[in-house]
Amino acid sequence: MSDQPMLPIEAGTAPEPDIVVVPGRRLRARLVATFATAEPGDFRTVAAERLDLIHGGIAGDRHHGFTRHSGGREPWFPRGTEIANDRQLSILSLEDLAEIATRLDVPEVRPEWIGANLVVEGIARFSFLPKGTRLFFEDGAVVALAGQNAPCKIAGRAIAAEVPDRPDLELGFPKAAKRLRGVIGWVERPGPVFPGQAVSVHVPEQWIYPA
Amino acid sequence: MSDQPMLPIEAGTAPEPDIVVVPGRRLRARLVATFATAEPGDFRTVAAERLDLIHGGIAGDRHHGFTRHSGGREPWFPRGTEIANDRQLSILSLEDLAEIATRLDVPEVRPEWIGANLVVEGIARFSFLPKGTRLFFEDGAVVALAGQNAPCKIAGRAIAAEVPDRPDLELGFPKAAKRLRGVIGWVERPGPVFPGQAVSVHVPEQWIYPA
Repeated sequence: MSDQPMLPIEAGTAPEPDIVVVPGRRLRARLVATFATAEPGDFRTVAAERLDLIHGGIAGDRHHGFTRHSGGREPWFPRGTEIANDRQLSILSLEDLAEIATRLDVPEVRPEWIGANLVVEGIARFSFLPKGTRLFFEDGAVVALAGQNAPCKIAGRAIAAEVPDRPDLELGFPKAAKRLRGVIGWVERPGPVFPGQAVSVHVPEQWIYPA
Repeated sequence: MSDQPMLPIEAGTAPEPDIVVVPGRRLRARLVATFATAEPGDFRTVAAERLDLIHGGIAGDRHHGFTRHSGGREPWFPRGTEIANDRQLSILSLEDLAEIATRLDVPEVRPEWIGANLVVEGIARFSFLPKGTRLFFEDGAVVALAGQNAPCKIAGRAIAAEVPDRPDLELGFPKAAKRLRGVIGWVERPGPVFPGQAVSVHVPEQWIYPA
């Protein structure tokens, strides 16, 4: 972040002067792969030539909906509580997937093994894009990011099923993929997405809440 | 933030070691006032004994909906584009309102003048709560925060209409209220909200995206 100006908030416009606001900025990326739900009940996804993003998520996808039922990722709710759905899509980067593969000492970790919907290329440390980042796709769709996706044993098992003689991957994946397993997000504006599209990544201004 | 531990991400779990992850934490607050839409078309709100938060926002409120039409706050969309609605509620703090009043040299700025729905007390620099913060209300409702609300001339005009002989407030408000005008948010889990409720504020872990 050496070339990013760190701007203190303007004198006289906040109660305390110790919050540093880092300006938002735009980055360029490319969408390199799109995947849709495979069989009902199957964790994996399958390559698709194109996805139609609509309000609520991917048309026809099992994660589509304005609400969803809470699960193990939200232990503060009784399981099955109907909550707002900010987990409409799973988005990964080629670079983070390659890093996971290196750490696991496997030739590759394919995004469809772990339920990815979109894979992008060209953003360093993609999984660290902050909440509120917007991905503007070339043909009009916009996806808002809700934060990092936590790698779990279910995804680890799916990877282990694809790699011969590596049962250790089931438990190894959650550790190796921490903060590399991409982000979740929701559709802000509908539109088509397909491989080859340019993506403008709008990182919002950020600060660390100090209280 | 002197007593907050700054944790570098674990060695070997991220491509680069220069991202500092600040842990999430919980803060205690109190809900001190609730307001509902006044007349249709009226910017102001009116005190309500209780609000029913449902998926999409406040039952019966003009801002309720899973989607909304974009306006001047989203100049990157053609006006009227149907987008996901993360602006279901306007939430302010007593402390930030008092600071705005001090800066404007007026006895008070009442939350209902500027369309507030919820007013809380007890959180320092409330308007800086980061995107993804969750407010857990005592009786089950949960509201997710989407970021700072930008003060505008319309709100300034509403304040000027309430304070005799201070036409300067219309233009003075947007400047004085910057980063003090509260936050917007959406309903994550339905439930009733009413004055006096305890609020548990879950601030998520944070970092500054470095790329």
